[in-house]
Amino acid sequence: MNRNLIFTRNEYQQRVRKTKEMMDKGGMEMLLIMDPANMNYLTGYDGWSFYVHQGVIVSLDAKYPLWFGREQDSNGARLTTWLPDDCIYGYPDEYVQSRYTHTMRWVADMLRGQGLEKKRFGLEMDGYWFNARMYVTLLEELPQAALMDGTNLVNWVKTVKSRAEIAYMKQAAQICEQVMQIAIDEIEVGVWEKDVAARVSAAQIAGTAEFGGSSPAIFPIMPSAERTSTAHLTFDPDRQYQRNDVVLLELSGARYHYHAPLSRTVYLGDPPEDLQKTADGVVSGLQQTLKFIEPGVTAEEVEECWRNAIAHTGLVKPSRVGYSYGLNYVPDWGEHTVSLRPGDKSILEPGMTLHFMPGIWLETYGFECSEPLLITDNGCEKFIDFPQKLFVK
Amino acid sequence: MNRNLIFTRNEYQQRVRKTKEMMDKGGMEMLLIMDPANMNYLTGYDGWSFYVHQGVIVSLDAKYPLWFGREQDSNGARLTTWLPDDCIYGYPDEYVQSRYTHTMRWVADMLRGQGLEKKRFGLEMDGYWFNARMYVTLLEELPQAALMDGTNLVNWVKTVKSRAEIAYMKQAAQICEQVMQIAIDEIEVGVWEKDVAARVSAAQIAGTAEFGGSSPAIFPIMPSAERTSTAHLTFDPDRQYQRNDVVLLELSGARYHYHAPLSRTVYLGDPPEDLQKTADGVVSGLQQTLKFIEPGVTAEEVEECWRNAIAHTGLVKPSRVGYSYGLNYVPDWGEHTVSLRPGDKSILEPGMTLHFMPGIWLETYGFECSEPLLITDNGCEKFIDFPQKLFVK
Repeated sequence: MNRNLIFTRNEYQQRVRKTKEMMDKGGMEMLLIMDPANMNYLTGYDGWSFYVHQGVIVSLDAKYPLWFGREQDSNGARLTTWLPDDCIYGYPDEYVQSRYTHTMRWVADMLRGQGLEKKRFGLEMDGYWFNARMYVTLLEELPQAALMDGTNLVNWVKTVKSRAEIAYMKQAAQICEQVMQIAIDEIEVGVWEKDVAARVSAAQIAGTAEFGGSSPAIFPIMPSAERTSTAHLTFDPDRQYQRNDVVLLELSGARYHYHAPLSRTVYLGDPPEDLQKTADGVVSGLQQTLKFIEPGVTAEEVEECWRNAIAHTGLVKPSRVGYSYGLNYVPDWGEHTVSLRPGDKSILEPGMTLHFMPGIWLETYGFECSEPLLITDNGCEKFIDFPQKLFVK
Repeated sequence: MNRNLIFTRNEYQQRVRKTKEMMDKGGMEMLLIMDPANMNYLTGYDGWSFYVHQGVIVSLDAKYPLWFGREQDSNGARLTTWLPDDCIYGYPDEYVQSRYTHTMRWVADMLRGQGLEKKRFGLEMDGYWFNARMYVTLLEELPQAALMDGTNLVNWVKTVKSRAEIAYMKQAAQICEQVMQIAIDEIEVGVWEKDVAARVSAAQIAGTAEFGGSSPAIFPIMPSAERTSTAHLTFDPDRQYQRNDVVLLELSGARYHYHAPLSRTVYLGDPPEDLQKTADGVVSGLQQTLKFIEPGVTAEEVEECWRNAIAHTGLVKPSRVGYSYGLNYVPDWGEHTVSLRPGDKSILEPGMTLHFMPGIWLETYGFECSEPLLITDNGCEKFIDFPQKLFVK
């Protein structure tokens, strides 16, 4: 079969080497990776098959990672990964959502068959894709193995991007810029919210004249009116925009699952004074913080800078003010590594990509104005150049 | 705040009663529900906040379920659920993706505060949303509780739909019919795959003139050519359709997260004989099986009927031939209860909804032709009336 790789083999090999370095530091001989973005990162695998159990196993001693998944998806691995065919294992369909057996029994059988049942074995314990039953089954099936916590190990490797990755993220940013412009242009009193959401979804996929997009890891977050008083609601499918609506837009472009998220806020009418004041305070704090961000500062120092910058406004943001993001599938484009909040000692370095997201949700409505950022050699660079303000229409 | 409920309070209460009945049969005093579709089913909660830890706890002794989630999402619970405000608990942001503490510590604290730390406590052990770290943390924090497996308990309650649910599923079916027609109309030699995918995504959201759609739980699955030899790839963002392409379409409409999935296959050109033969065999087997389906037969008998119906064609489908579906969020619209495959003893009953999905993936391409079905009092009813054939263009 033809392999459709979006990075060089050398780049994939380098990612595996870095993963092994981290495993070695943590005393892990093997690592089970079930997060689809991490699977994609190390092997290229790309399919919506993660609703059944599947994974990649990296062993310090093995040249290639090993892919396993449902037999009917194994051709997908042959088409999308750089792995040799003999590193691709399909399990029979009887393991799918079975009440009698479990995929982790099949995994344990496979490991025993390869003499790997006594290894020190890292697991993505606190990830989305490694559930409690999987863990209990491996405990039972591999009593001689040392099961260890490998949560976010690959996520940390992923956190610093290569040039090739940044190039895709810049394409995602071009898509996002178009998407946001369409949303702001289309939102008008009397327009159906669903129709704007439909235009947004189409633009996310259609991309630009030069390249296509992919479905982002989070659906279009675009609540209106009272629904903006909280963080993660979306459009009302049966409502038209009304005069004096606040509309929050948290939208992303994605290219090969590399993201570029952006938030902006629209007001239909004359904005109330406290909303405009909130907007001005947030934008000013955002701009000051962007000047502060550079390699060598810590995540918590960025949050402190932001907090000081808005102190005079009386605004308080009790939630984190940003996070690392990049290559992801549902349900999140965040990487779960660097968080801009008190206590996070992560030192920023060139190639990291952060979504600086100072969203404020008040009792009756909210305001958001965010920036996706690339840490450069001497500061930071916005992926998207989009006006920072409350959009009044 | 205004509550926006899409079902009556009585219907939600009935769902909770049925859940408690199942818990009681299983000897569970409490049930922790972290699956967002199950949370929605019992409380109405609807937001893209499931990328952080959140859940609903049903106690046999409590009148209302209890919702917990991130503090910034708690207004979302106040807006979308039928729960009284004092049943909605927000946890501080420091618990989000923390390396120092864990949301399950917060949950355990809350349960201790209510004197519930010694209960028999059901957990969705094999679900997507209850991970290994959550389980280990609860084991540590609640040593006097009896932790039990409550996997799919609510899913089984959900499997039989109410009239109101079926009404939404019929709306989803109307959306799906439009979506499929658009896809088939737009696919032509020379058209960009991404542009058809964009039209599909827009139609899924825009819905009909009467009502809007919601983002389906699975992105548009629409691979072409060699990518159809496996189950879960999608469009190539940088490719135009070519002559002699097979295009598989597995697309859904969704209304308030109630689905109606449908699969069809398009061929651009004169189809090869074996593809047409496969198509004819599958469609004939599908039609025979639909006549067989009625209340009282078991899931495995349906599969057996299908297997016998296609035996003369030489086709073999080693994977299950359908499954229960309905209310879902990413990553799956299936309910993980009834599977049409050998060994599944589930007896079909009126109100169940099945996606009969006889997809065949051969070495170089595949064929799919599926039907979403409602089990009625004396047979089954297709949700969508769409031609069953290989679409040749």
